[in-house]
Amino acid sequence: MQRHTPHTPSPSLREDAEKVIHHAIDRNLPGPAVHAALRDLPVPEGCLVLVAIGKAAWAMAKAASDELGEKLDCGIVITKYGHVEKPISGVTCYEGGHPVVDAASVDATRKAESLVEGLGSHDLVLFLVSGGGSALFEDPKIPLAQLEDITRQLLACGASIEEMNTIRKHLSHVKGGRFAQLCSPAHVFVIALSDVVGDRLDTIASGPAYPDSSTVADALDIVDRYELSLSPSALAALGEETPKELDNVQTHITGSVRALVASAAEACAKLGYDPLVLTTSLDCEAREAGAFLGAIAREHASDGRDLAFIAGGETVVHLRGSGLGGRNQELALSAAPALAGLENTCVIAVGSDGTDGPTDAAGGYVDGTTTRLLAEAGLSVPDTLDASDSYHTLAACDGLVITGPTGTNVNDVAVALIRAS
Amino acid sequence: MQRHTPHTPSPSLREDAEKVIHHAIDRNLPGPAVHAALRDLPVPEGCLVLVAIGKAAWAMAKAASDELGEKLDCGIVITKYGHVEKPISGVTCYEGGHPVVDAASVDATRKAESLVEGLGSHDLVLFLVSGGGSALFEDPKIPLAQLEDITRQLLACGASIEEMNTIRKHLSHVKGGRFAQLCSPAHVFVIALSDVVGDRLDTIASGPAYPDSSTVADALDIVDRYELSLSPSALAALGEETPKELDNVQTHITGSVRALVASAAEACAKLGYDPLVLTTSLDCEAREAGAFLGAIAREHASDGRDLAFIAGGETVVHLRGSGLGGRNQELALSAAPALAGLENTCVIAVGSDGTDGPTDAAGGYVDGTTTRLLAEAGLSVPDTLDASDSYHTLAACDGLVITGPTGTNVNDVAVALIRAS
Repeated sequence: MQRHTPHTPSPSLREDAEKVIHHAIDRNLPGPAVHAALRDLPVPEGCLVLVAIGKAAWAMAKAASDELGEKLDCGIVITKYGHVEKPISGVTCYEGGHPVVDAASVDATRKAESLVEGLGSHDLVLFLVSGGGSALFEDPKIPLAQLEDITRQLLACGASIEEMNTIRKHLSHVKGGRFAQLCSPAHVFVIALSDVVGDRLDTIASGPAYPDSSTVADALDIVDRYELSLSPSALAALGEETPKELDNVQTHITGSVRALVASAAEACAKLGYDPLVLTTSLDCEAREAGAFLGAIAREHASDGRDLAFIAGGETVVHLRGSGLGGRNQELALSAAPALAGLENTCVIAVGSDGTDGPTDAAGGYVDGTTTRLLAEAGLSVPDTLDASDSYHTLAACDGLVITGPTGTNVNDVAVALIRAS
Repeated sequence: MQRHTPHTPSPSLREDAEKVIHHAIDRNLPGPAVHAALRDLPVPEGCLVLVAIGKAAWAMAKAASDELGEKLDCGIVITKYGHVEKPISGVTCYEGGHPVVDAASVDATRKAESLVEGLGSHDLVLFLVSGGGSALFEDPKIPLAQLEDITRQLLACGASIEEMNTIRKHLSHVKGGRFAQLCSPAHVFVIALSDVVGDRLDTIASGPAYPDSSTVADALDIVDRYELSLSPSALAALGEETPKELDNVQTHITGSVRALVASAAEACAKLGYDPLVLTTSLDCEAREAGAFLGAIAREHASDGRDLAFIAGGETVVHLRGSGLGGRNQELALSAAPALAGLENTCVIAVGSDGTDGPTDAAGGYVDGTTTRLLAEAGLSVPDTLDASDSYHTLAACDGLVITGPTGTNVNDVAVALIRAS
């Protein structure tokens, strides 16, 4: 059995994997895209107000502030803890909780609501939207504790991000087009950085400035499907319909998992790997995607070619235990058993925002030594998956990929690398 | 959205998919392999006795009988219901239950035990082994009802086939090398048709003539992991160790999922598709493998090339509902949402034995029309998966692939086909 042979994969595999990831993320930072989109920004007769939300909010707002200078009258950034790099002149930066909404997010969101509610028809809101906005930009119609409980129920039952957004939109003062309604009669110019497979504008950050295609009936279906426990006031709030039309909004969409994957493929090619993009719409269970990707890598490990298999998208985790982890860490770890004993193969998976789940890791890295290292530490992949504890297990085998907050958020990418020898 | 456009995929996609599957199966029928292996058969001074087990038992025995003629003194075939094509001279054919052991299998197995127990050191047992033998060749140390209950518990909790075999070996008079022990002092010449990823001889048909690497400790670990409910007599039987050495056995292994996949790739190339073998060791959850394969097909549907993506192995189904289905039917159906609206793409998945799960279908076929057809019939993929009812849902959209018993059993293959236009 190969797995009992002593071996050390070339350290260059790990270096290559990290290079691919860093290149892909660097090529998808929002600055250049924001600059390009601002060329179409109308000049308002009144005020120009900036509201930036999501994990990429600070980087997007910084790019806009650099471009607009004194044309910008005032603004608000609402992003995740640790994501504000430094002050931006004329813009107030707030940080809040993600993936679970907290009181700081709600307070900041209410400040944004106040900022836009008095605007007139000659004013303009520059609204910069990025992923993570679903949690970070929120003013619920029900007490926050109830919303937290519903979010926890939805995460635990493995509801899709679309289903979660349908519920959250109907329970919110700002989601599902309602923020744009609040801005009216002011015009809203949206630049959206997509972290959603298929780049659907109504699901990025729960679409605060996009007409909502989900209905009260859809929301109630989800309540039935997952047998959610709701209070009478939550049920009443779910019964209020979201706007189906908005006439004061103009939207530019930028960034996509497709571009992230293309950049990863470009980096692989530069390093000598022949890249094959498997898909940019991965949406299955993280652990099963990892097992499949691992099986693909194992199959081609003896092809005698330098190969890269790349998959982008957003996998799902059905929480089983009370451990710590994220979908990218779980995907990577699940590929490890298939790679056991191989000296020329690795799998890396990261979230482009640099924060996978409620952890400080961007994702995970595994290779042919991983399962041996875990066994030596008394750990195993199946036990880890049962405990939903990929973070601590990867930490034990030096498998965490740490980038810090990256400033962008265009979904996830997983790469299997194979060296000919 | 493409899915609202009326469309009809070319009927040739379905034809091509079926051709690929039939070619792959035809190339992996056991006859030629048995003929080749028999060249090494020693000529016994005493009797030559044939015992053939598994879903391919009849076809393997027929090939051996055609080759050996009157050199064969007597024999027994034990296969699945409906798998005996016609009588074989000098050989008694029995049929029994699969995947759940039944009394007919146990009776037939005891006849095989009687046949070999009196043999001497000059006699030879020609033992033809194929997948399905785990259920079809069984004489349990505990009442059959108890064994059925344990098998049901293992299927329901999604235990791997390796884990199921570890338990069943320790509870059996014939598995885990014990049948070869019964044959002793006679010599045993084994021809094994592999249906196991990695072709491990101790797991094909639970290895009745192969030393068992699994231990009493392994078996008890599995009992703990899945919290199996066992009687005191079952627990006692699990405590008896299986043979770790056998000196009277010579084994030829033939057939493999690798050959099945290679034949499928050959057929794809013949039809003009550029084939890429993703893996021959697929072992994840069937529905997630289907979603991943569907996402790959969707990604490449607009490449403007004729492509085939092929994956072989054996997926797992965690039963959720009380419907009817099989892992290949579930894999195919799970690919359908990703293909919705595409006119040039399909996915087919089959078991090479022609019987997927407890159904009369070999597997399933889906294309860009499937989800529309299902919606018209009031059905959906998620509901079907929750009910574990892929058979009836595929039947409703003409998605069942029916081959009848094929005579071989070299695991499963799934193929995504993409036509340039």
